[in-house]
Amino acid sequence: MTPIDAFDMVFFGGTGDLALRKLLPALYHQHQDGNLPVDGRIICLGRSPSDTASYVAKAQSKAKEFLGKHYNEADWALFASRIEYFKVDANTTADFVVLAEALNKYPTRNRVFYLSTAPDFFAPIAKNLAEVGLNKGNARVVLEKPLGHDLESSNKINDEVGEYFTEQQIYRIDHYLGKEPVLNLIALRFANTLLEPLWRREWIRDVQITVTEQVGVETRADFYDKTGALRDMVQNHLLQLLTIVAMEPPASIDADAVRDEKLKVLRALKPLTPETVHNKVVRGQYRAGAVGGKAVPGYQDEPGVPAGSKAETFVALKAEIETWRWAGVPFFLRTGKRLQERLAEIVINFREAPTSIFGKNTQPNRLVIQLQPAESVRLYMLAKEPGRERLREVYLDLDFKEAFSTRSPEAYERLLMDVIKGDLSLFVRRDEQRAAWRWVEPIIESWENSNEGPKTYSAGTWGPAASSALLSRDGLCWHEEA
Amino acid sequence: MTPIDAFDMVFFGGTGDLALRKLLPALYHQHQDGNLPVDGRIICLGRSPSDTASYVAKAQSKAKEFLGKHYNEADWALFASRIEYFKVDANTTADFVVLAEALNKYPTRNRVFYLSTAPDFFAPIAKNLAEVGLNKGNARVVLEKPLGHDLESSNKINDEVGEYFTEQQIYRIDHYLGKEPVLNLIALRFANTLLEPLWRREWIRDVQITVTEQVGVETRADFYDKTGALRDMVQNHLLQLLTIVAMEPPASIDADAVRDEKLKVLRALKPLTPETVHNKVVRGQYRAGAVGGKAVPGYQDEPGVPAGSKAETFVALKAEIETWRWAGVPFFLRTGKRLQERLAEIVINFREAPTSIFGKNTQPNRLVIQLQPAESVRLYMLAKEPGRERLREVYLDLDFKEAFSTRSPEAYERLLMDVIKGDLSLFVRRDEQRAAWRWVEPIIESWENSNEGPKTYSAGTWGPAASSALLSRDGLCWHEEA
Repeated sequence: MTPIDAFDMVFFGGTGDLALRKLLPALYHQHQDGNLPVDGRIICLGRSPSDTASYVAKAQSKAKEFLGKHYNEADWALFASRIEYFKVDANTTADFVVLAEALNKYPTRNRVFYLSTAPDFFAPIAKNLAEVGLNKGNARVVLEKPLGHDLESSNKINDEVGEYFTEQQIYRIDHYLGKEPVLNLIALRFANTLLEPLWRREWIRDVQITVTEQVGVETRADFYDKTGALRDMVQNHLLQLLTIVAMEPPASIDADAVRDEKLKVLRALKPLTPETVHNKVVRGQYRAGAVGGKAVPGYQDEPGVPAGSKAETFVALKAEIETWRWAGVPFFLRTGKRLQERLAEIVINFREAPTSIFGKNTQPNRLVIQLQPAESVRLYMLAKEPGRERLREVYLDLDFKEAFSTRSPEAYERLLMDVIKGDLSLFVRRDEQRAAWRWVEPIIESWENSNEGPKTYSAGTWGPAASSALLSRDGLCWHEEA
Repeated sequence: MTPIDAFDMVFFGGTGDLALRKLLPALYHQHQDGNLPVDGRIICLGRSPSDTASYVAKAQSKAKEFLGKHYNEADWALFASRIEYFKVDANTTADFVVLAEALNKYPTRNRVFYLSTAPDFFAPIAKNLAEVGLNKGNARVVLEKPLGHDLESSNKINDEVGEYFTEQQIYRIDHYLGKEPVLNLIALRFANTLLEPLWRREWIRDVQITVTEQVGVETRADFYDKTGALRDMVQNHLLQLLTIVAMEPPASIDADAVRDEKLKVLRALKPLTPETVHNKVVRGQYRAGAVGGKAVPGYQDEPGVPAGSKAETFVALKAEIETWRWAGVPFFLRTGKRLQERLAEIVINFREAPTSIFGKNTQPNRLVIQLQPAESVRLYMLAKEPGRERLREVYLDLDFKEAFSTRSPEAYERLLMDVIKGDLSLFVRRDEQRAAWRWVEPIIESWENSNEGPKTYSAGTWGPAASSALLSRDGLCWHEEA
């Protein structure tokens, strides 16, 4: 491991859910594993006046809950000594002066400003950081989604932050890209001879990317009803996963080499038109049903949802990539709330063997990269049963859990360490984000101009029937674990 | 499982080592697993006068030794009730009359005559079986190696047996072909999309087939000194394994479809000439050394070895297959006695990835099919270590031992059941044998005409230095387990 320089990690939104449940526990893990330089500081900011001791106490009680068996009093005590709390209001420059004073104790350190706030605050925070001289070359800004609700608003945010920080300083985080199976997929594809030659239209029939939840809109109706599944999930997470699957081998693992390849995929997505949206994109909204054996209300009856809402809580779509490698291979994406299971997976369905000498005993190979609920990478093949003529489908664990007995880190651990190290590879570049928005815009427009609302589906199912129909038109069906 | 008709299995050489150590235990296993029809008989023949009870007692004591934990008194008792013993001298027609009488109790049954004797007896046995009418359509003859010591003598044996039995009745056994990993290799290659597209010169750098022993010539000097490793191992076992690796996908699993493809490989082997033999074939003979920490004598000092013997106890060679699939891919074969380990394996070395974005962190993929000492099929790949950037080589168990908890049967079990069922797929057809002999003939001739004897190597090593040099000329080296 290359040694890491001391750093100051600054969390805007330090009292928020993400900081307490994910970011601090992630840094605790890295601290416990000895990956953080001893004098690295964690500076948590919130709008409420508080002191470090109270903040740490609150953080500790949350951390205990999320760290489980990894929580350890002694480790926590040492970790907590890194934490300082400051009250900072995004619009109050005076607060930033105080922050700058604290940071300037170590003027040359790398500084990470993690903006775990609503996007409305990104611009004022960026401006105020610049105001007090905290936007120098040693500063990095991490932006959490949502970065706008369409191409225009996203451009606006990026322009505003870009006024004070260069693109090389901006880390747009998509935590799906930090998940171990996704990272392993990149390694498996490009470090082995065995997958890459098959990773193309000649041998792959279709790709399916699914990210589903059992939960409903919960307390976020106000936000969600204006956003919907397309903006909340497809435009970012699902399209990002698609780029990892589909990208050409980059010439190096340098951040821009990788991101150039991802961008090429987004730009090669076959554009949708009002007519094709109708055929290739399914939107749904859940009605009352039962999830995990428990009756749940429909979306329209959730607290805070406006009457007659047309917000989609489900999207399924067929994307096509117009390249020599992928032409003709459908990429099916689906995401939604109140579905049968919580599941995030990428399924690569290989083509059937062109002929079978073993009779009807066939089953196409497939690679299943699961991100949730468990993490795994499994290659399904047919093998001969010992002592019998029969073939049976079995899978290979390509994440080699047995070979690697080390703890598999959370996505945020990896991504936070990357920011600290200054590695942009797994962060979304502005042009990628733009290309992704551009591709989904015709869907948004088409829906806005349509009299039809979303199809309904019962909570606890796999979404509207049209989602299955989308695949059956190609003679395919969604992958479901047996 | 399709039900199997009642059968009579007749072992010539019933008192010999193979029958007692392998054939009877193999049938016992199949009996125990419930795969033998209840009234199937096992008729054991020997030259010495004995009765069934004494023979069974002897068989039992041997069986106990080889069956280990699978031996069970009750199962054995039932199994033994299938056995009958007859004294039959290969040259005494009267003995065959008695045999015929016993068999004609069930005149329509399938009859298997397993010739586990020296090849000198094959012709008289075949003749006498015909003499007493036992060569009808319900008869099958199993021939054990050696089938001659060169093309001519092999032709002679095949002609003689062929006078009384059709090719469809003749089962030339090569027990390596009955081993589970070899069978699984066929299934893996042709039931999955994932291997076949890579199974060619574009993606495979070289193939290595190794069958080595730690034992020396033991008590078989008389036979072995006239035979040598080339005839004893290369012409049959190693070339057969080569055909399984290299064959094109057959159009069906019918015996002749498979054997046609194997034959095509043998016929596509680049012929050797006196000049190329010198460069591509290494012969060796062991001198004194130490195997497994125990001092052992040299071949020339083994009991029964004639002074100045030039018999080879080691062969390494480079074979080339002149087809579109394999041109330019060397197939290295090696076998020998008194080597460092007992090992039988096929190693498919894939080419290196054409470029690496992960720096020096590379290692070409390889598939290792091990037949001895343990049975396994392992695919070596590089994967990412969780939480680190490092890649590590790990292997996938392609024999799925965990998935299949069933006992993995011995090669002879599979092959005996195939004979009983009448499936010739895994038996060597006459034209295959001829092609294999034809290919090794120039080696024999070249050695006979050479003044140079075999290179010496110390017992307990991996053979003469020339064996490594053979590969290093191609920039390669023999696979050795880390």
